[in-house]
Amino acid sequence: MDKTLIFGHKSPDTDTICSALAYADLKKKADVNAEPARLGEVNNETQFALNYFGVEAPQLIEKVGSDVTDVILVDHNEFQQSVDNISEVKISEVIDHHRVSNFETKEPLYFRAEPFGCTATILNKMYKEYGVAVTKDIAGLLLSAIISDSLLLKSPTCTKHDVEAAYELADIAGVNMETYGLEMLKAGADISDKSANDMITMDAKEFSMGDAKVEIAQVNAVDISEIYKLQADLETEINKTIEEKGLDLFLFVATDILNNDSEVFAAGESKGIVEKAFDEKLDDNNRALLKGVVSRKKQIVTVLTEAFSK
Amino acid sequence: MDKTLIFGHKSPDTDTICSALAYADLKKKADVNAEPARLGEVNNETQFALNYFGVEAPQLIEKVGSDVTDVILVDHNEFQQSVDNISEVKISEVIDHHRVSNFETKEPLYFRAEPFGCTATILNKMYKEYGVAVTKDIAGLLLSAIISDSLLLKSPTCTKHDVEAAYELADIAGVNMETYGLEMLKAGADISDKSANDMITMDAKEFSMGDAKVEIAQVNAVDISEIYKLQADLETEINKTIEEKGLDLFLFVATDILNNDSEVFAAGESKGIVEKAFDEKLDDNNRALLKGVVSRKKQIVTVLTEAFSK
Repeated sequence: MDKTLIFGHKSPDTDTICSALAYADLKKKADVNAEPARLGEVNNETQFALNYFGVEAPQLIEKVGSDVTDVILVDHNEFQQSVDNISEVKISEVIDHHRVSNFETKEPLYFRAEPFGCTATILNKMYKEYGVAVTKDIAGLLLSAIISDSLLLKSPTCTKHDVEAAYELADIAGVNMETYGLEMLKAGADISDKSANDMITMDAKEFSMGDAKVEIAQVNAVDISEIYKLQADLETEINKTIEEKGLDLFLFVATDILNNDSEVFAAGESKGIVEKAFDEKLDDNNRALLKGVVSRKKQIVTVLTEAFSK
Repeated sequence: MDKTLIFGHKSPDTDTICSALAYADLKKKADVNAEPARLGEVNNETQFALNYFGVEAPQLIEKVGSDVTDVILVDHNEFQQSVDNISEVKISEVIDHHRVSNFETKEPLYFRAEPFGCTATILNKMYKEYGVAVTKDIAGLLLSAIISDSLLLKSPTCTKHDVEAAYELADIAGVNMETYGLEMLKAGADISDKSANDMITMDAKEFSMGDAKVEIAQVNAVDISEIYKLQADLETEINKTIEEKGLDLFLFVATDILNNDSEVFAAGESKGIVEKAFDEKLDDNNRALLKGVVSRKKQIVTVLTEAFSK
């Protein structure tokens, strides 16, 4: 029997995990033998959402097995963010809300990217297009994904489609969006049990920008200074990663979820480009406060890509 | 005022021209300041359709001008098939039915690829999604695109979505699909006024396959032997193109629209790969008959890409 595996990006976040779970649910209801999967550990924020709505995390995979007929990528398309053997498998679909880059197939496929704040918002549309009702637990997962990617609808990536979907889903899930959302974000911002290595890997993504290899890790916090107490350890771990992966730049982004600012730490040979890109000097600790910057995708990746391509 | 330019691939075919015209019509009805454009000469088949339904060909452009805010690509996504300055402009949308390759953006966009036989079939769906009625002339153009890409619904690329759309559109356009379709295909297969250089450029597409640069030109004919009367001239022109573009392989595909076979001619350093890919010997003229092969996309590009990646 055909078997379709559905998964999001490495260092999974709430949108990636919840979108894989939801799309597998929708596909199963459309008689496709689909299974959700994940490429890494479930973070505290996502685990809070899974516990709240009583859903099991998807299976952890390292490679796509030979029993799999085809795969569906959600919440990413860039191969370096995907499963290691991605170029050997048949990609039948992509559902995503990111830029398109370092992606290719030999054959035509269903590729759907919409410039929304969250993959879950596209999936909420797709339930309607398939004529399938969203159940309470799936509504909770999709809502959690939107809250996570939009920092409770406050990120500049958030569109009216995300806002509408969020209110609709909160209703089905039977939660107060503000109360539930803040609780979930705080669970994700709890770094008390995290090592420096956890913090630079738990939400890290790699990008090709011009000829440069760039990794950007983001951590949410209620109090940024708590994170930078570990600066020395963070620096050691980051320099190890730069060495191992041959990175030109590692940008560590600590985001204040209450004030919606980010303090970044830059390392690597190309760290000077951060000053040019954001027109902010790095201080003696190689850090800079970026006021109003919360979105890696819209406010960091685009600006850095532009700077690297000059 | 914002200005959006909509165009298909170089060496435009009927799907590329008609999809640009139709999507510009739809966008204008959705209050977007959209203009259709084309990247090359209108071929005989497309001109037949435009004349039949009384529609002007879109403007010819060589580059996207500085007055253009963003562009929408229809019927292609690979940059080498697009306008020369594609990497300098903002791509806001892609509507396509091909594989995804050599495409990237800095920012999220609306990217819609569906594995149908024709871009026009996707556009027919989009008119419904937008709640806009398809007028008689637009129906005629969309139908012509489907007939062209599917060789009157006979190509293996043709899906049930294309068939349904074709019958629906023939009804609105007020034509008998078989009669109109055969007349249109024959107009396209009329090579009496074509030089060898016309034949190798009028429907040519370039592809990256592994590390190889490959160009594949396709010409429809009622009698293939008529085309190969010009073999010596074709060879001269093809060798010039290989030299100029640094190609590893040029595959010339002459397709018999009545019997649904193709006779190919291969040139370039990698021509041997054609024999391996299709398990057919090239004869003394470097030609081979590929029985039942009519689709460049589904029956040629995929097979050659596979062979080049081994």
